[in-house]
Amino acid sequence: MNLFTSVHDVTDIKQLVADALALKANPYAHNTLGKNKTLGLVFMNPSLRTRLSTQKAAMNLGMNVMVMNMDKDGWALETQDGVVMNGNTTEHIREAAAVMGQYCDILGLRSFPKLKDREEDYSEGFFNKFVQFCGVPVISLESATRHPLQSLADLITIVETNPVPIEQRAQGKKPKVVLAWAPHVKPLPQAVPNSFAEWMCKAQELHMIEFVIAQPEGFELADEFTKGAEIVHNLDHAITDADYVYVKNWSSYKEYGQILPYEGNWMMNNEKLGLTNNAKVMHCLPVRRDLELAAEILDGPNSLVIQEAGNRLWSAQAVLKALLENH
Amino acid sequence: MNLFTSVHDVTDIKQLVADALALKANPYAHNTLGKNKTLGLVFMNPSLRTRLSTQKAAMNLGMNVMVMNMDKDGWALETQDGVVMNGNTTEHIREAAAVMGQYCDILGLRSFPKLKDREEDYSEGFFNKFVQFCGVPVISLESATRHPLQSLADLITIVETNPVPIEQRAQGKKPKVVLAWAPHVKPLPQAVPNSFAEWMCKAQELHMIEFVIAQPEGFELADEFTKGAEIVHNLDHAITDADYVYVKNWSSYKEYGQILPYEGNWMMNNEKLGLTNNAKVMHCLPVRRDLELAAEILDGPNSLVIQEAGNRLWSAQAVLKALLENH
Amino acid sequence: MNLFTSVHDVTDIKQLVADALALKANPYAHNTLGKNKTLGLVFMNPSLRTRLSTQKAAMNLGMNVMVMNMDKDGWALETQDGVVMNGNTTEHIREAAAVMGQYCDILGLRSFPKLKDREEDYSEGFFNKFVQFCGVPVISLESATRHPLQSLADLITIVETNPVPIEQRAQGKKPKVVLAWAPHVKPLPQAVPNSFAEWMCKAQELHMIEFVIAQPEGFELADEFTKGAEIVHNLDHAITDADYVYVKNWSSYKEYGQILPYEGNWMMNNEKLGLTNNAKVMHCLPVRRDLELAAEILDGPNSLVIQEAGNRLWSAQAVLKALLENH
Repeated sequence: MNLFTSVHDVTDIKQLVADALALKANPYAHNTLGKNKTLGLVFMNPSLRTRLSTQKAAMNLGMNVMVMNMDKDGWALETQDGVVMNGNTTEHIREAAAVMGQYCDILGLRSFPKLKDREEDYSEGFFNKFVQFCGVPVISLESATRHPLQSLADLITIVETNPVPIEQRAQGKKPKVVLAWAPHVKPLPQAVPNSFAEWMCKAQELHMIEFVIAQPEGFELADEFTKGAEIVHNLDHAITDADYVYVKNWSSYKEYGQILPYEGNWMMNNEKLGLTNNAKVMHCLPVRRDLELAAEILDGPNSLVIQEAGNRLWSAQAVLKALLENH
Repeated sequence: MNLFTSVHDVTDIKQLVADALALKANPYAHNTLGKNKTLGLVFMNPSLRTRLSTQKAAMNLGMNVMVMNMDKDGWALETQDGVVMNGNTTEHIREAAAVMGQYCDILGLRSFPKLKDREEDYSEGFFNKFVQFCGVPVISLESATRHPLQSLADLITIVETNPVPIEQRAQGKKPKVVLAWAPHVKPLPQAVPNSFAEWMCKAQELHMIEFVIAQPEGFELADEFTKGAEIVHNLDHAITDADYVYVKNWSSYKEYGQILPYEGNWMMNNEKLGLTNNAKVMHCLPVRRDLELAAEILDGPNSLVIQEAGNRLWSAQAVLKALLENH
Repeated sequence: MNLFTSVHDVTDIKQLVADALALKANPYAHNTLGKNKTLGLVFMNPSLRTRLSTQKAAMNLGMNVMVMNMDKDGWALETQDGVVMNGNTTEHIREAAAVMGQYCDILGLRSFPKLKDREEDYSEGFFNKFVQFCGVPVISLESATRHPLQSLADLITIVETNPVPIEQRAQGKKPKVVLAWAPHVKPLPQAVPNSFAEWMCKAQELHMIEFVIAQPEGFELADEFTKGAEIVHNLDHAITDADYVYVKNWSSYKEYGQILPYEGNWMMNNEKLGLTNNAKVMHCLPVRRDLELAAEILDGPNSLVIQEAGNRLWSAQAVLKALLENH
């Protein structure tokens, strides 16, 4: 692996999950693999989980880490070619990315969408130019349209908590995973649900799970991410007999970046949990309690959110290990 | 030791001081104790000494360190339970603390008081919830009401510079330490003086020192921190024959967070130094020259402030060593 | 070497360049030299290249690194003596620098000029006080008037790409290096061109190069930096037969900090490149494309800017190595 920006960069996701769980069992087994290698983490936007888990993952492999907050430490980057730079941008991404590649063996980049222009966001122009010009392997720390380290951590969490008994798995029984849209007061990117859907569709193809997306009409994700998923517009129907409910808000893709009106109660709580197969509840965090997800679930026995966040570490470490082994 | 938030978390302060001085003599004697362990430093407020000394202390023990500036890198945390999070807070401390605990073996937290609501500040609600939810040992990097790493460094500095000849110590002679209130233009927390008083009262109990607090009326600290201290409202009387004068401003506890009117000259200078037993002068820094403390003292032979700041390193290293040895 | 603030701190620049190129060939040859040593990087201003390259350089030598953004993490420093600190400054540089020296074996400092008061900027008051009070070796990460880590990287780049055939060198042929003023929309410091000129004048003295400065009238640098340089007011004349063109904007020294009117086209492009001896083009970055320097050059075969930025690493590592070996 030479790049980690989506599920399409991974040859074998089952193996990657297995690698991650092996690292979780034995975190320091490869603690010299990254000797004399430097990971640069470039944040165009704030980060808590991603920053800490990826740093820790790199250190577990013996790498050095340098963190660059470009929104604060640095300066505004120009991304367009053919522009006379006599305005507010002080450096072109061609130079900035190439320079960072001079000092780092692997780079991680976080770059959120602006949610103004769908075509611009979905072209991943900034992210792709960074990859093009930096000259070293790049890990997505969340781009405009995807958050693959999160999705891998989610899959790890599902695999390690799979409630289907071994004998039933042999008979083809798979856990039912529901991505459930939830309310929010701010318009959020589609990156996490896009990416989760993309990974779960792949896992469904590999007969690891069954995948359903529950969302009000108008909140359909872009088709490219949801191939093979069942899409349901009623939360209660969708979560019936679910083994996992993955709660997440997103703004509309169709009416780009908008919060559309919707009907019904879309917040998971204990009453709705009663419809499920005693489902485990997941969320990528940060979560707004009692708006996106009931506090009674977060504080109850069905919540996986902290374990899921913990798995961000093994997700990042497995990806870094794969990149290091390729060089 | 599993927690370091006040003198009450320490079983034997004499031993802890001795450990710190042993580390000062031999900083790298335990440089593999922290191998594969990660310290996370979480700052809700700015820091210079604490940030650098604690990082360096951890590295001396072979630990990895990750720094998180939550006021800048992160987001506003919710601390109340039962709140529908549809406002400005983007994550609850229950999740944020638990997540940080997933990536770190020990966490340090700095969280200043707001100086608006005494009950809220003195409940240490934010700090205690962080400790409760993070699931790993926590070191205070200064909380609303205490700054124990500073106080330990202060005690280390007094022990290593003790001016009482050995033979007089055997006869019960102890250095006289005076905490001396000083003027300032801004209302400052009571955390440093509370904590210093608490540690010095303990040291007095153990016959290590004699302890006096000098302050204008109205600036009494909360009783819980000053048990056993002599409280004097005249600076000149208090510092007569003193061996150490610990200069520090604080705002009123009684008229909470206020700067009260006061009489007399409360700034230590060379003239006042003449009243003392050639006292060493201490201050936790940052210090405002010629407002809190005369420049002539800071630049003169009686100042210990740089040595004291240097001892922050050994204070932190002794505490980290104790926490690591307990796990 | 005990200090690195200008070319005058270096005994033998040829040897220092040779050391840097040896490190470039073998980056980890001295990876235990910095064991248990800590480098503190103090930034009063933003940084990308300097921050990352100096961190990486230190890590290559086995040092620990702590980064301090004083403009964001810290507080406003007082630099004047004899001031009652009852205003906005919260700590005096006497204490702040001394404290940082307690926790670090070597300190790096970046401190830009304000471009308001020439005498103040050129006195390097802030920088020199920091050096005076911190008590440990200091590396300039760019001061008000100089950027020596950049200049050393520039010289390394020229030495490693020297186009003069060996036999012609023996006959005294030297590469012609032109520092070429370029347009900009903002008034920039003279630190980079001052420093480049100072290093190139020294290299010229040592018969390593020939050095010419091209600039519109009124943009003369201070005499102390340009002794021995030929100064030309016409870009085309200056760059004729040049082997290297070092493009850089700066504001006026005479009319301090001003952007003066000028005549002619001062932006290097491919047409002007035709006047040169197929010159390599350099720039310290960040560069504003098609304002300071034509994109066609930056994207073409004559640009050295990324290699030059990459050499910042070896520049910093050679300097750190020299400082470490001296202690």
